[in-house]
Amino acid sequence: MSDTPGAQWNAGDTEADAKSHLLSPSEEMAKLGQSMRPLIAYGEGIHVVDAHGRRIIDGPAGMWCTQIGYGRKEIADAVSAQALKLSYNSPWYTTNSPSAELARRIAEVTPGDLNRVFFTTGGSTAVDSALRFTEFYNNVLGRPEKKHIIVRREGYHGSTSLTAACSGRSFNWQNFDIASPRITFISSPNIRQAPGLSEAQFLDQLVREFEDTIAKIGSDKVAAFLAEPLLASGGVIIPPKGYHARIKAVCEEHDIIYISDEVVTAFGRCGEWFASEKVFGVVPDIITFAKGVTSGYVPLGGFAVSERLIAKVSGENAKGSYYSNGYTYSSHPVSCAAALANMDVIEKDGILEHVRDVAVHFAEGLRSLKGLPHVADIRVEGLVGCVECLVDPSSPEVTDRDKKLGGRIDTHCFDLGLLVRPLGNICVLSPPLIITKAEIDQMIGILRQGILKAAADLKEPVAA
Amino acid sequence: MSDTPGAQWNAGDTEADAKSHLLSPSEEMAKLGQSMRPLIAYGEGIHVVDAHGRRIIDGPAGMWCTQIGYGRKEIADAVSAQALKLSYNSPWYTTNSPSAELARRIAEVTPGDLNRVFFTTGGSTAVDSALRFTEFYNNVLGRPEKKHIIVRREGYHGSTSLTAACSGRSFNWQNFDIASPRITFISSPNIRQAPGLSEAQFLDQLVREFEDTIAKIGSDKVAAFLAEPLLASGGVIIPPKGYHARIKAVCEEHDIIYISDEVVTAFGRCGEWFASEKVFGVVPDIITFAKGVTSGYVPLGGFAVSERLIAKVSGENAKGSYYSNGYTYSSHPVSCAAALANMDVIEKDGILEHVRDVAVHFAEGLRSLKGLPHVADIRVEGLVGCVECLVDPSSPEVTDRDKKLGGRIDTHCFDLGLLVRPLGNICVLSPPLIITKAEIDQMIGILRQGILKAAADLKEPVAA
Repeated sequence: MSDTPGAQWNAGDTEADAKSHLLSPSEEMAKLGQSMRPLIAYGEGIHVVDAHGRRIIDGPAGMWCTQIGYGRKEIADAVSAQALKLSYNSPWYTTNSPSAELARRIAEVTPGDLNRVFFTTGGSTAVDSALRFTEFYNNVLGRPEKKHIIVRREGYHGSTSLTAACSGRSFNWQNFDIASPRITFISSPNIRQAPGLSEAQFLDQLVREFEDTIAKIGSDKVAAFLAEPLLASGGVIIPPKGYHARIKAVCEEHDIIYISDEVVTAFGRCGEWFASEKVFGVVPDIITFAKGVTSGYVPLGGFAVSERLIAKVSGENAKGSYYSNGYTYSSHPVSCAAALANMDVIEKDGILEHVRDVAVHFAEGLRSLKGLPHVADIRVEGLVGCVECLVDPSSPEVTDRDKKLGGRIDTHCFDLGLLVRPLGNICVLSPPLIITKAEIDQMIGILRQGILKAAADLKEPVAA
Repeated sequence: MSDTPGAQWNAGDTEADAKSHLLSPSEEMAKLGQSMRPLIAYGEGIHVVDAHGRRIIDGPAGMWCTQIGYGRKEIADAVSAQALKLSYNSPWYTTNSPSAELARRIAEVTPGDLNRVFFTTGGSTAVDSALRFTEFYNNVLGRPEKKHIIVRREGYHGSTSLTAACSGRSFNWQNFDIASPRITFISSPNIRQAPGLSEAQFLDQLVREFEDTIAKIGSDKVAAFLAEPLLASGGVIIPPKGYHARIKAVCEEHDIIYISDEVVTAFGRCGEWFASEKVFGVVPDIITFAKGVTSGYVPLGGFAVSERLIAKVSGENAKGSYYSNGYTYSSHPVSCAAALANMDVIEKDGILEHVRDVAVHFAEGLRSLKGLPHVADIRVEGLVGCVECLVDPSSPEVTDRDKKLGGRIDTHCFDLGLLVRPLGNICVLSPPLIITKAEIDQMIGILRQGILKAAADLKEPVAA
């Protein structure tokens, strides 16, 4: 069996290797060594092709990351050229050109004065390091008590011990010890959880809860508020209009650092390099990024921090202090070269403009599913959207039956040629940004069929 | 100014970008925006070339990672081919071929039954995830109290919040909040800190301290012992012979998971794929790796875990539990393709055999420096070694003057064409593994000159 013309490849061997030797993220341990996830052989544009030769639209863009799609020669060439030229240098005592240039180019497109960039290896380390920066900041300022972090339920910020502790999806907590006295959760800005309230009333309630939480902890003890502009893997939760600006105003009042976790939303997902200011109306103190910065071709993440904050803990204010955080692969030349080439492609191909153009079509397509059976809610912003399905849409409580319904839709869609990210009862679509209007129609069409087939299953239950 | 023939490159622009926009690991904040680390333009074999065209031997192999050296076309080609074929797939719900094959090939060269592999993006995330695995393990086994971690002073395990908390180098703690009630430090196995004791007596003392520490915490509360085979960035500390086996026996007695952090020592640094068993005589329960697995060309890390441990928390024992840890860039196809090509090069070029061959020469060369002024100690294992220098070698206390001496040696060596990793008063050499005997002679010769020049400086102090 061959995966690409001319290449010999034994998928059976790969399957045996995976079953015997891989431990994968979110592994269902009861099935370890027995089950096999779909084996992806290659990718082309917005499609991936599995080991059986099935061509599938990559609905989730990998993991919200394959912005410019698969098989881009520009990135392969840039990565190869950099690997030949300078494959590595220690960022602890030397510098390389791609990381310096990338830091400048990112600074050029961040909002406000977020002009100082620290690089890591992905989203988890980006957030972990941003939080460690806030510790450093408050220690240098002589406020060692100001260390508390406020986050939201249903938020997701990563899988290091600290960032997992900041993530509010209960599924991720099972069997892991991530509760921390330093971290407090407030409500998800999900209006479906506030029946009877108007958007304005709900927003007032959220802001009041935030203020009350700060008052309870003590504003001299709260270091940071950490939030995704929209809660992505928490179920594409889009906060009420004006939410971020209102929360940011409260942060300013109490000298709390506002960290916008743009690991999902940056680099074009919402039609802008960064979504915080231009889409969500807030200029944060720190923005974290990863995923789209390289379109997923090579691991890279990082954060950009405000010059105002940096000024307070550098130069004459630094008191001989070292920001002694860092990774072997911080500022990695090959990762940074991939990101530079990726930014070039996004500019050259006008991808931000393209996203703003097709996003309207995408939203209309998703909203056209509203009348279908079991469709309870549709949420969309830029090229990220979801259809929330419930067996009984009039009862908003999510049950195991609802989650199985989501699984059924996923399975049908996969058979019909579309990967849909299974998030329980929520069907998420966040395709590669290069998707055309015709391909959006095809994608939405498959999702429509998948929902209808799953609805039919529910009427005539098949043997499990 | 051009860096490689034909390429136009303005080092001045890069310097301006770096000064204005980069935040680097271990940044000295008082000099942020003013100082500039050496700018590396390209690499060739064991050499890097800086922006001024100076050709320098890469004494630390980047950051203990550029095993097969710079400019290897095999890796550039493998990375480029994989980026074109399948640049990304989500490890959360799909699989790719390079990660499955790499997991098998790593399992083939790990000691014992460490045959199940989880991939991350570097050493910090490797250790963070290994520790989170021990939490998961004890929770599934119904022992939620068994969570304490024992580590050593002067150990280094990473820069995520949790792994930094496990690192015992005091420098890294300044201005960061990483003390944790879950983590207890025991002594570094550094015989220089135990004057008057024989190696056997010192070993007995260390084992007794470990047993006492477990007894004090309660063995039902201790989850893991985490240790580098040799303490690398803690100053190339090589424990007394038999140390690891003795400690492992104590771990077995108390059902404590032994994690060997081989981020530095694996993939040939000590002449073997993994050093734990073949060099240090211990078969651990978990081994973490990173760096050498790709020779630093692309970020990758991970851990290999014993099938015996896995069996206890999988299949019928799994109780519906998910190992819900993982990264967007776990099992990254491009990173894994780089690692496969790297393992091919190591095999094809006989690099493990080469290391075992030249290591004797390397050790002899380092030991030839023994009579030089200020040389207090020489430690070496495989292709990692160090010369510890003190202004007064008869007084083992390390002062700021000693650290400045180390800095002086570094500066002289850099001018003479050798990067030496500045670890305070300790000059570390851990060159790319492809180094020849002649190049070792050259490297040691430069270090000799550097030490002599620094000694001369001390006699005739120059204006600071």
